Amino acid sequence: MLRIITQRAEARTELRRICDRIHDDQVVHKEATVREVLQAVKRQGDRAVLHYTAEFDRLTFKAEDLRVSGSELDAAYQQVSKELLDAIRLACRQIEAFHRQRMPKSWVQFAEDDVVLGKRYTPVDCAGLYVPGGQAAYPSTVLMNAVPAKVANVPRIVMVTPPGAEKTIHPAVLVAAQEAGVEEIYRVGGAQAIAALAYGTETIPKVDVITGPGNIYVTLAKKLVYGTVGIDSLAGPSEVLIIADKVANPAHVAADMLAQAEHDQMAAAILLTDDSVLARKVVDEVERQLIDHPRRLLTEKAIAHYGLVVVVESLADAADLSNEFAPEHLELEIADPWGLLDRIRHAGAIFLGCSTPEAVGDYLAGPNHTLPTSGSARYASALSVETFMKHSSLVQYSQAALQKVAGAIDVLAKAEGLHSHADSVRLRVRGNLNPEA
Amino acid sequence: MLRIITQRAEARTELRRICDRIHDDQVVHKEATVREVLQAVKRQGDRAVLHYTAEFDRLTFKAEDLRVSGSELDAAYQQVSKELLDAIRLACRQIEAFHRQRMPKSWVQFAEDDVVLGKRYTPVDCAGLYVPGGQAAYPSTVLMNAVPAKVANVPRIVMVTPPGAEKTIHPAVLVAAQEAGVEEIYRVGGAQAIAALAYGTETIPKVDVITGPGNIYVTLAKKLVYGTVGIDSLAGPSEVLIIADKVANPAHVAADMLAQAEHDQMAAAILLTDDSVLARKVVDEVERQLIDHPRRLLTEKAIAHYGLVVVVESLADAADLSNEFAPEHLELEIADPWGLLDRIRHAGAIFLGCSTPEAVGDYLAGPNHTLPTSGSARYASALSVETFMKHSSLVQYSQAALQKVAGAIDVLAKAEGLHSHADSVRLRVRGNLNPEA
Repeated sequence: MLRIITQRAEARTELRRICDRIHDDQVVHKEATVREVLQAVKRQGDRAVLHYTAEFDRLTFKAEDLRVSGSELDAAYQQVSKELLDAIRLACRQIEAFHRQRMPKSWVQFAEDDVVLGKRYTPVDCAGLYVPGGQAAYPSTVLMNAVPAKVANVPRIVMVTPPGAEKTIHPAVLVAAQEAGVEEIYRVGGAQAIAALAYGTETIPKVDVITGPGNIYVTLAKKLVYGTVGIDSLAGPSEVLIIADKVANPAHVAADMLAQAEHDQMAAAILLTDDSVLARKVVDEVERQLIDHPRRLLTEKAIAHYGLVVVVESLADAADLSNEFAPEHLELEIADPWGLLDRIRHAGAIFLGCSTPEAVGDYLAGPNHTLPTSGSARYASALSVETFMKHSSLVQYSQAALQKVAGAIDVLAKAEGLHSHADSVRLRVRGNLNPEA
Repeated sequence: MLRIITQRAEARTELRRICDRIHDDQVVHKEATVREVLQAVKRQGDRAVLHYTAEFDRLTFKAEDLRVSGSELDAAYQQVSKELLDAIRLACRQIEAFHRQRMPKSWVQFAEDDVVLGKRYTPVDCAGLYVPGGQAAYPSTVLMNAVPAKVANVPRIVMVTPPGAEKTIHPAVLVAAQEAGVEEIYRVGGAQAIAALAYGTETIPKVDVITGPGNIYVTLAKKLVYGTVGIDSLAGPSEVLIIADKVANPAHVAADMLAQAEHDQMAAAILLTDDSVLARKVVDEVERQLIDHPRRLLTEKAIAHYGLVVVVESLADAADLSNEFAPEHLELEIADPWGLLDRIRHAGAIFLGCSTPEAVGDYLAGPNHTLPTSGSARYASALSVETFMKHSSLVQYSQAALQKVAGAIDVLAKAEGLHSHADSVRLRVRGNLNPEA
């Protein structure tokens, strides 16, 4: 079921097909729906939010029920086990520690003639976090979005998440939010939640940045509101690419592939190895581990459509193929992972060595698990503290400094036909401009 | 013509109207055209690029003429004055010096149990720079886009710019490109240029990131291809907000406002001052400086529609209004600009003191002049070296470290219903999991 390919050309074609899998979707039709939702929420606020929640989620709310109450927040702590609370707290601490590393710092630099240049970093005023929900619960998603916003010192952090059938939010999600310092939570999901965050409603505040993964409607909505607000990225289905050599354990590699495939039938799991024996064993192990898998059907589909094993000539070859794919997650289950690292150009997160399954990073190693998908690691990065911050350039010139560059500015402004640009400098300096600067 | 407002409520309404001015546009109709162009270029490559260049720009090309030749590049140096070349070189040096400051650096951190965490920064493989052109020439735009890409060590930098009526590119643009280290230049503009960079054609390479400002078609195209490639931002019309007190020179303030207005009839120029005498004088000066203005008609339009003077109670009030507007450019022409800085939360670039006209930053102070517009300084920043780089998270766990967190991961994975996530850790560790971690 999991195919093995040995031809490089075929491997490249297959990898391209897998990388582009999201474009197959009927995106244009869905976009029309999303546009309608955005317009309605922009115009009608809460009313439209409640309307689409009834229509799409089959749940009838009043506006005053949208916000999760203090007593529900408190009650959530009674509903999670001590083990889960401890695990959430451990993850929270480690994610926070990592994100506190190398926080962007404001700086100024003093140059000659009293010129001051610098960059000043400030947080956004208000961040909106989208957390998928419904029947599933993702406390880890809460932490990976909320903790960086908190570390960035965002004064107001708002979370939205679709409720389950009983209109409730999973207690693990509510506990994770509170552990990360988020208490303003609204039970709404889908495009209507993104619209509410982008435009604001009577109940839900307009935010400056929206982050977090969601289904195709959420992603389309994020793309459409980008420009009205900032967004973290357009999340596609998840993927792992594993480069393994003979030191890798086939059962471990198989589990890592299935850990990706079990997310979603669109998830991709790829193994590149220079060891054809390992390739064979991994295929067998995947079959074996699928037998009793609680999500067998979905996981099998993902493996069948977007699972792949490629036997390569060398690990250098594997790195080159990986660079073309630009995976969200890259595991280097090889004898010398640091030796191959220099050859890796594009990957959202890199897991080095045989004792670092991706799950460590998904939950608690510290780095963010919100990563660029579908080849966007070619140009994009993990969600980070910077997602919730921006910088202002600082410039101060003295009269003497301005005098020195006045001639050069005059020449440039005139070359661009911008008369008042030249004037704004000329009027401030005395005597002849010095075109030599 | 330039209105003075003294009521705070009216000022807020007017500032909001000006900030939202871009949304008035007939964007939806234009988007259909842009979608058509994107689809055609994606499918037909050069043929579509040439077709739309003939249709929109009334210029007929062969594919082999798209790329600017080496002899044209050489010839450009003969066509610019020594003064302009020197000014371009000065600007290039200063922009490079600023962008080399605080380059993002890769790092690793070693924790207990041989855990290694880090971030590894790498440049994109290929960057595409859009430079507006046609009848105008913007060498400064070339430098502000190309220099950061060069500093980021992007191996391949491609520039596109619409040619003028004679199919030529302005020599100042070609010289600026070469001074910044860019020699791969294609004469194509509009949505078809963005499409070519996003999808690649027979002649023009597919890039990873597209940066640079353009008209509404270019901006819409950038928004639509975002996700296929990275983009810097969605540039709207330019704007300046000036906070001035009695130390400011009315003629200087007026010139700064006109320097913004002369860009575009959608440009905005706003003065907030606590000195009603200054307000009056600036209005008079604007009138006076407009009399002989070479772009009088366009500049007057911008001032009439999107020019505004607000007399405020205090500079603190001015800062608060400015934060609501989140200006692209903010000038603090006041006695104590550094004193007010702490109250400023959102601005693309801040120009401090009376000897720092925005034009200094537009051309050569060093910070980037590609800045967030239309209120997006609430969440976005200037184009920077980071626009052309991305980071990969690095994680390495040892067997001992994995053992310690195995229990916590198991609990979290099970709470999320992700069986193989749990397996991928459980299979790697021996004995009992320790849920306390």
